[in-house]
This record gives sequence, structure tokens and C-alpha cells, in this order.
Amino acid sequence: MTDRALLDDLLAGKIPALARAVSIVENARPGFEGLLAALHPRLGAARRIGVTGPPGAGKSTLTMQLVSAWRRAGLRVGVVAVDPTSPFTGGALLGDRIRMEQVALDPGVFIRSMATRGSLGGITTSTREVCDLLDAAGFDRVLVETVGVGQSELEVQRMTDTTVLVLVPESGDGIQALKSGVMEAADVFVVNKADRQGAPKLRREIELALDLRAGRVARGGGHHGALGGARQRPDAQATPEGWRPPVLLTTAAKAEGIDELLAAIDAHWDAQSANGLLEARRRARLADRMHAVVGRAVDRWLWTDGPARELVAARLDAAARGATSPYDVAAEVLAAVREGVQV
Amino acid sequence: MTDRALLDDLLAGKIPALARAVSIVENARPGFEGLLAALHPRLGAARRIGVTGPPGAGKSTLTMQLVSAWRRAGLRVGVVAVDPTSPFTGGALLGDRIRMEQVALDPGVFIRSMATRGSLGGITTSTREVCDLLDAAGFDRVLVETVGVGQSELEVQRMTDTTVLVLVPESGDGIQALKSGVMEAADVFVVNKADRQGAPKLRREIELALDLRAGRVARGGGHHGALGGARQRPDAQATPEGWRPPVLLTTAAKAEGIDELLAAIDAHWDAQSANGLLEARRRARLADRMHAVVGRAVDRWLWTDGPARELVAARLDAAARGATSPYDVAAEVLAAVREGVQV
Repeated sequence: MTDRALLDDLLAGKIPALARAVSIVENARPGFEGLLAALHPRLGAARRIGVTGPPGAGKSTLTMQLVSAWRRAGLRVGVVAVDPTSPFTGGALLGDRIRMEQVALDPGVFIRSMATRGSLGGITTSTREVCDLLDAAGFDRVLVETVGVGQSELEVQRMTDTTVLVLVPESGDGIQALKSGVMEAADVFVVNKADRQGAPKLRREIELALDLRAGRVARGGGHHGALGGARQRPDAQATPEGWRPPVLLTTAAKAEGIDELLAAIDAHWDAQSANGLLEARRRARLADRMHAVVGRAVDRWLWTDGPARELVAARLDAAARGATSPYDVAAEVLAAVREGVQV
Repeated sequence: MTDRALLDDLLAGKIPALARAVSIVENARPGFEGLLAALHPRLGAARRIGVTGPPGAGKSTLTMQLVSAWRRAGLRVGVVAVDPTSPFTGGALLGDRIRMEQVALDPGVFIRSMATRGSLGGITTSTREVCDLLDAAGFDRVLVETVGVGQSELEVQRMTDTTVLVLVPESGDGIQALKSGVMEAADVFVVNKADRQGAPKLRREIELALDLRAGRVARGGGHHGALGGARQRPDAQATPEGWRPPVLLTTAAKAEGIDELLAAIDAHWDAQSANGLLEARRRARLADRMHAVVGRAVDRWLWTDGPARELVAARLDAAARGATSPYDVAAEVLAAVREGVQV
């Protein structure tokens, strides 16, 4: 298949072409950048939705419920799982796996799990590029499921249009999220396993934290950059952008609360489309991508045709005996790069 | 304080100098590379120990027990916490925090929590550099506590001399670890919260997995690169390197099993010192560091004096309307770098 034929088939939504393109991109095989460059002008139709939260929050079950619901609505859905604890990536309970495989048999669904290559929760550029492929192939929704522990939720938010943060009552995760600033990453909160004790309490805590955030912003005493320019009162029901993240109760294993979640995701889309924030968010995403792609291209050159590989190999012994250091070698490499010298 | 005075004070183990050096390194302030280059020949006396495992496994409590025990033995101990769920970094329960603060009041202990900057579990180069500072300042043990979910354990193993993988009975973590190949990262296994149901079972499962690994290796049917070249039988009690990771039971909250853990850490040190693997491991670590430091230096140049920043800013609008793409811009930047052109 020529590159042109591959691109045409991908844009026509043909699954074998998509699978081949994913493989090319994931493995950075020759031509992968040309392929991505060619489809770049065709991106943007898909809505990208992140589902994140701590291990055990039920993200995969919720993801499958969303996939099923969107399929019933006639939408094509792509799923990218970067969660090492997810059934999509091997951490499944048997029941989950069976459900997942039923979903995966549907030709309107494309599921891909991505290795995280050592930096857990670290969403690589190639993960984002696989989302591009799904977008280009005409999938209406691209769902990114990723484990959130600490700060990785913010990374998910930067790569999606809407991010759903899933928490569960029994762990201290709710409190953790409120403390660590992770809540800034959520466009929609979900308290999953809502049939368990503590769910209403967790919901109230999150609502309270949202109140406090709104209050801090209104008083100008906050440090939440993304919320600057607030004009409303502490008791206002929306952030300055006109969107206050709703806090929903779901029991994904019983398909409860899914309709409300779908409605919230759509409402968030409508709100940010109307106020121009969607465009701003996507532009920031593009800037991120340019930064990453440029850095990756230069790094690859550096260690192949560039001066780094040979210099580092030549200096390892000396560094091991303390005669030079990694920092001295870096200075040598940098001098070679600046002078355009090919070692 | 001149750079020379700072270096001298740091090497003399003076805590204010250490604190200042850590701040300089963490923030990549001017001179940080020169400082690290100057102390590079003085590194190696500290034993670096990783404590990793899933959230809730009790890593922080175990870390504090190790710190206390080493202090009683007269050793100075540095702790670097890159675990966002750790009490050192803010995710504390009150009891943990109080215990942590008691430890922190001891001048023979230096504790530093590191931000993970969005890539959770992602151990940055500056984390490793802070370990260098602790080593240079004469700390006998440098303990790195990090949350392990998925593959980040392997990263910890690459930055330490001995890595302790902490698991707990109640979660499926044991099984997860066995599945995902994470067990390759462990030099010592700890089943913590051993007073809970399921601890002996988890221990047996890990032992069984170690047996299977040894068997696979002996039959040559495994795919564990690190264990290649095995010559022993399936029932052998050690890996080809002569070290079979012990599986210990601890109840860190009650200080139970800590002596055995200390002995196992020392035994691992002795074993790899004797067979030359310690030197090999440290050399691989140095190669990693050189790679990272060179890459970082070139990347910083790229976005300051190099051609990337201006080109990317100039092309963002065009990329947003599809007239160019991140990949075309990367090619432009790379061409400028290769030609030694300063845009």
C-alpha cells in the first residue's frame, strides 16, 4: 500500500488502514511523520474525552458504558487506554474482560492500549498521535482512559476536550484530589460505585471544594491561574468560564447514572463551544504538540546523525572513573551542535 | 557564598549548603551543572535504595522504619520522595505526618520531596541529581520512595543499587506485579501489612512466580532479557546472578520484620558487590544519566538560543488553520539545527 493509499483509506474510515497507521505511528516507522502531517488539516471533528481517576475507581467499566451508549446513538467510538491497571491493557478481572471483548467485536469501536514506557501515567506524544488517527478516521468520540495518581490528570485534561475525573467513596481519593489541585483538571466529576456508603458525603465534599474555589476566585485571593478574571460572587454556581463542573453519582457496573454523565459531557461541549474556550483549549493543545514533536525530532537526530551518540560512547569510561562528568560531555555535545559540526 | 565554598561545604556534609544545592539543582539555576560536574568524581559512597509499590502499600511507614533503624546504627540517611501519595509530599494521614516530623527533626536525616511535574511516577533527572547531592554530602544511605503503578518500578530500579517492592495482601497488586513483568524490578519483595488475611498467600504466589521465572530461564523459554545466560535448573534457588529476591513479611506500622528487611538489603549489596553486578549496574546508571543530561542540555538550548522557539511561535497560526503541521515545523527546525543556522 502506498502512503497515499494508506492516507485515503484511513480518511475513509477503513479499519485495516487505521490499524496499520496506528502501528506505524506507535513504532515511529519511516513515514510516520509524513502521514501525520498529511492528515493534520483534516483533524477536529472528533470530540476527545478523557476518563481518569485512581486505580480501582471503575474507569474501565465506566468507559465501556460510555462506549455502549454512544454506539446506541449511532456514533463511532475510539478508545485509547493508557491505564496499566485497565482491562484494555491487561489488568482485567474476568468479567470486565468479557464485557470489553463484546464491545471490541463491534466494528464501530476501535480499542487500542498504549504502553507507557516506564513513565507511568505519562502520556506520550504517540498516544496523542493515535488519537489524531482515530479523529482522522472519522470516529465521533475518542475516549482516553488513563490512571490518575497525582498530577497525570492534568496531562489528560490538556489532551482532551472534556475530562471526566472518576472517584470512589471508600478511598481517600476525594480528599486527595481536592488537596492536590487535581480537581482543576476535571470538567465533570463522577462519584462512581455510588451504591456504596460514603458516596453522598464525597459528593458534598467535592461540591464544597468547588464552592471554595469559586469563592477564592471571586475574592481574588486564589492562585488558580486558569480561573483568573472572575467577576462572580462566592456563591455563584459557575466558574468564570460559565462552567461549574457537575458532580455526578454513577454505579457503572449497573449502568446507573450513565445518561446523566452523557448529558454532562455534551453540556460541557456546548458551553465551551459557545464561549470560545474550546477553540482556545485546542489551540493550546496544538502548541503543546508542536513543542513535543519538534523536541522529539531534534532528539532523534541528536542520537543518530547528530553528535551525541559517538561522544557519549567515547566518554563513558572517563566518566566512570571521574575524569569527566555527564555535564562536561553535555557541554561538548552542545558545542558541536551549535557549531553545526557533525562528529 | 562562592560556588567553591558551596561545593566545599556540601562535601563537608553541611546541611545549609546541601539545602542550597538542592534548591539550585531542582530549579536548574545558573551554575547547577558546574556544581554537579564538580562533585561527580566524589560520588559512589552512598548506597541507594528504592522503596516502591502501589498506593496504600505502606511505603512511607516502611521508609520511616528503615530510616529509624539506620539512624540507630549511626548511619546518616537521605530520603527523596517522589510519591504524590506519600506523607512526605502532602498525602499524609495525621499519624504518619507526626512520625515523619519526628524523623525530620533528626539532623542525621535529610528529607526532600520532589514534584513529579505532570508525569506521575516519572522520575526526573533532577530527582537523580538530588540523590547525587545527598551522596556527595556524605549520607550513607539514600532512600528513594516512589509510587509504583505499572512500569515505574523499573525506573526506580535503574536509579538505585537495591530496590524494595512493597505489596499488600488485600489488593490484587501481587498478581498485577507478577503479570506485568514489574517483578523484574525487585531485588527484595516485601509483603507489608502482614498481619492481614492473605499475606501468606501473596507471599506464596510471589515465590511461585520466582520459581516459574527461574524455570523459564533455565529452559531458555523466557523473554526476560536481564536473566539471559542462565544455567540452573527450574528448582534452583537463585537467579543467574546468584541472587534470588527474598520475599519478606513486614508489618511496618508495628515495626515488625524490619530487621529482616535490613538484613536482606545488606545481603543484596554484598552479593552484587562480590559478583561485579553492582559495578555494572552503576555503569548503566551513568550511561542513562549521560543520555538524559545531554538531551536536556540540547533541548534547553533549542528553546532559548536555538531555532525552535521563534519558528514554532511564527507557525502556530498557520498550523491552527491547517496550512502547516507540527511535523513540517519540526522539519524546518531540524534543518536549521543541522545547518548550524541561528534563526
